[in-house]
Amino acid sequence: MTSGHFSGKMVFMRQSKLFTKTKKESPADEVSKNAELLIRGGFIHKEMAGVYSFLPLGLRVLNKVENIIRQEMNEVGGTEMRTAVLQSREVWEKTNRWSDEVVDTWFKTKLKNGGEVGLSFTNEEAYSNILKQYVSSYKDLPLYPYDFKNIFRNETRSKSGMMRGREFYWKALYSFSRNEEEHNVFYEKMKVAYQNIFKRVGIGHLTYICFASGGTFSKFSHEFQTITSVGEDTIYLDENSSIAINKEVYNDEVIAELNLNKENLVEKRAEEVGNIFSLGTKFSAPFDLKYKDEKGEDKLVVMGSYGIGLGRLIGTIIETLADDKGIIWPEAIAPFQVHLLSLGEDEAVLSEAVNVYDALNKNEVEVLFDDRAGMSAGEKFADADLLGIPYRAVVSVRSLKDGGVEIKRRTEEKGEIISVEELIKLLKKN
Amino acid sequence: MTSGHFSGKMVFMRQSKLFTKTKKESPADEVSKNAELLIRGGFIHKEMAGVYSFLPLGLRVLNKVENIIRQEMNEVGGTEMRTAVLQSREVWEKTNRWSDEVVDTWFKTKLKNGGEVGLSFTNEEAYSNILKQYVSSYKDLPLYPYDFKNIFRNETRSKSGMMRGREFYWKALYSFSRNEEEHNVFYEKMKVAYQNIFKRVGIGHLTYICFASGGTFSKFSHEFQTITSVGEDTIYLDENSSIAINKEVYNDEVIAELNLNKENLVEKRAEEVGNIFSLGTKFSAPFDLKYKDEKGEDKLVVMGSYGIGLGRLIGTIIETLADDKGIIWPEAIAPFQVHLLSLGEDEAVLSEAVNVYDALNKNEVEVLFDDRAGMSAGEKFADADLLGIPYRAVVSVRSLKDGGVEIKRRTEEKGEIISVEELIKLLKKN
Repeated sequence: MTSGHFSGKMVFMRQSKLFTKTKKESPADEVSKNAELLIRGGFIHKEMAGVYSFLPLGLRVLNKVENIIRQEMNEVGGTEMRTAVLQSREVWEKTNRWSDEVVDTWFKTKLKNGGEVGLSFTNEEAYSNILKQYVSSYKDLPLYPYDFKNIFRNETRSKSGMMRGREFYWKALYSFSRNEEEHNVFYEKMKVAYQNIFKRVGIGHLTYICFASGGTFSKFSHEFQTITSVGEDTIYLDENSSIAINKEVYNDEVIAELNLNKENLVEKRAEEVGNIFSLGTKFSAPFDLKYKDEKGEDKLVVMGSYGIGLGRLIGTIIETLADDKGIIWPEAIAPFQVHLLSLGEDEAVLSEAVNVYDALNKNEVEVLFDDRAGMSAGEKFADADLLGIPYRAVVSVRSLKDGGVEIKRRTEEKGEIISVEELIKLLKKN
Repeated sequence: MTSGHFSGKMVFMRQSKLFTKTKKESPADEVSKNAELLIRGGFIHKEMAGVYSFLPLGLRVLNKVENIIRQEMNEVGGTEMRTAVLQSREVWEKTNRWSDEVVDTWFKTKLKNGGEVGLSFTNEEAYSNILKQYVSSYKDLPLYPYDFKNIFRNETRSKSGMMRGREFYWKALYSFSRNEEEHNVFYEKMKVAYQNIFKRVGIGHLTYICFASGGTFSKFSHEFQTITSVGEDTIYLDENSSIAINKEVYNDEVIAELNLNKENLVEKRAEEVGNIFSLGTKFSAPFDLKYKDEKGEDKLVVMGSYGIGLGRLIGTIIETLADDKGIIWPEAIAPFQVHLLSLGEDEAVLSEAVNVYDALNKNEVEVLFDDRAGMSAGEKFADADLLGIPYRAVVSVRSLKDGGVEIKRRTEEKGEIISVEELIKLLKKN
């Protein structure tokens, strides 16, 4: 079963029609590399610390990341829905999480006709409350609803760009299982699904499963930690087994329990790009979320939660893969597959570039065409490096003399001349 | 240029795996027909008055409506982006719309480290502020950015279900043109795009262009008003010309100006499903949003706004098309194209129903399969009527005896028996 949105791809765009422009400078108060590059490249606009709007280029990346996650969630049996942002006090009082003393990141606001409402900072209560209406028998379970939505957290500090937002777009799936065994089977499936996601978005080689604090119902939760010097967490990594332990639970007992050797564990800075959590009956109990089993006995539903912040994921990808010149997008999430540049004002060059652009469109290769007039080769190259599209294809007087287009990967120093047919063959297979 | 999301369709689902169930009753405080039917059918969940979550069935409808709107916006040159919900005071003070005395539907909340922020109730300021960074020359214009996002309005009354939300999902496009002439050409294009949208979602025959109050910069704005007894507006409709006048500007002078005859104008209740607005320089002036024209002179950008609330549109479609038994979805936005029902517990019936289900899947016909055991034919028929999927296909002992599947449109009383091949041929062409 696949699900979700129904629209077509935008496969091409002229850069002269893209309203965003690259900038030499990012806002003075922006200290994070990820936000700096995204702002300079025209992917996002900073509304305030921790709050960004997605400009057309950024939305293309976000949509691609979203679709990869959606595919993996559908693959494990997830059903997409969309919960509201505004949350009522009564629902959250059931778990004692309405109080600002318990949850210190609430944004709350007042209804004009009385009463306070909160802005979703997570979704356990909303889902438990909804499922309460639909679950009554063992036949109704298991269920794996999820959504993509904006989440709001009133962070006091928000200096990590997209990596710690006050408003951010996330995916959360909640599992509703009949018992621990059924829960555990699904939990293991989700580990694999998460690993697939991080591989597909290009940071699988830097991302490790990490044992972290588990809360009331299980000793550990599992984080997916990506190694990066700007990461907010400290982890201890065993590179042989690819297992890590979060500093918060790092001690001799845990090391022994996980059959790890302290000498092999290396301290690293890392960013949590996903987490999965066994919730037991922590939320089903206060909502009295029960089902009748095959014997007619009432049982509490066993829950799990599985989150990924898409902005943080994109920020982490940039932090880990970018170089001095700019962003390096993995192919699966790049806003376009190829950045076509026409150099100079030569008529023959511009006309051939348009031909190449049309040929790429016809073959459904996603292309951004830098057709801007009055810009030097150096300026266009610098912009291409900043935007980080996987391939750069240059049409110039020289490339025409050599019989084609100069193609270069963003990660390579030197390009080569190939024919338009070869270009299409190369990019179509990607 | 097309754009947007990249995921595949969900073409099939077993109703036994759909976690929502139909209900006999809707919440006691729900007085609107649209919300009542959507809640009873399991399309939406009511969080509080004017705030609804979209359950899997509802999200499928929402995605289809969204995609139709997206296609039409891309067709006129729109570029999709996504602005943040949290808005800073400084931006809105430029137009004097931060004050609660000027705008009485703000939801505001406080940042923990000081200062108040607002939740988007509209987008003119956010767009003007962003575009200010990217527009400097006549070469940068015109631009037509748009987004889909959640909008928040602190309504004192919210009793019309999806038709007046406190939190609602909308599309807003803003046009940024060089002068009035360029603006007017685009404005006329948008009238056509809007008419296309309302036609495509199935209420074109009930929706009229309506002259309404224009504000500072133009005498009129244009609303798209759908005739419905529960509509919030009163309009005066000339059915010959398909032109209407909103009560707020209805007077002899306006009637004469529009070349209408008072005797032909009939008073109707109607719901505003879309509106388009010439803004002139009302927003570009306070943001100093200027460009240099071809002579190097500074000119203010001329703006327009074009909104559609998707929830209100869906609510209006239900109010106008539903019958006593339930929802009637137009084909283009139905959650599935066909509702396949297996009746009874007969093994041969169930096995043939699964065959039909598989055949529909293979042919990419969107099918909801009511495979639920232990339900009477009457219960399944009533649910099918409530859910409102355009075609109902029944596999039963009788249909098998007659050599096929009983197919019936939701709007028809009687079905007919056709072969599985004919069924697929019928639905594939739709």
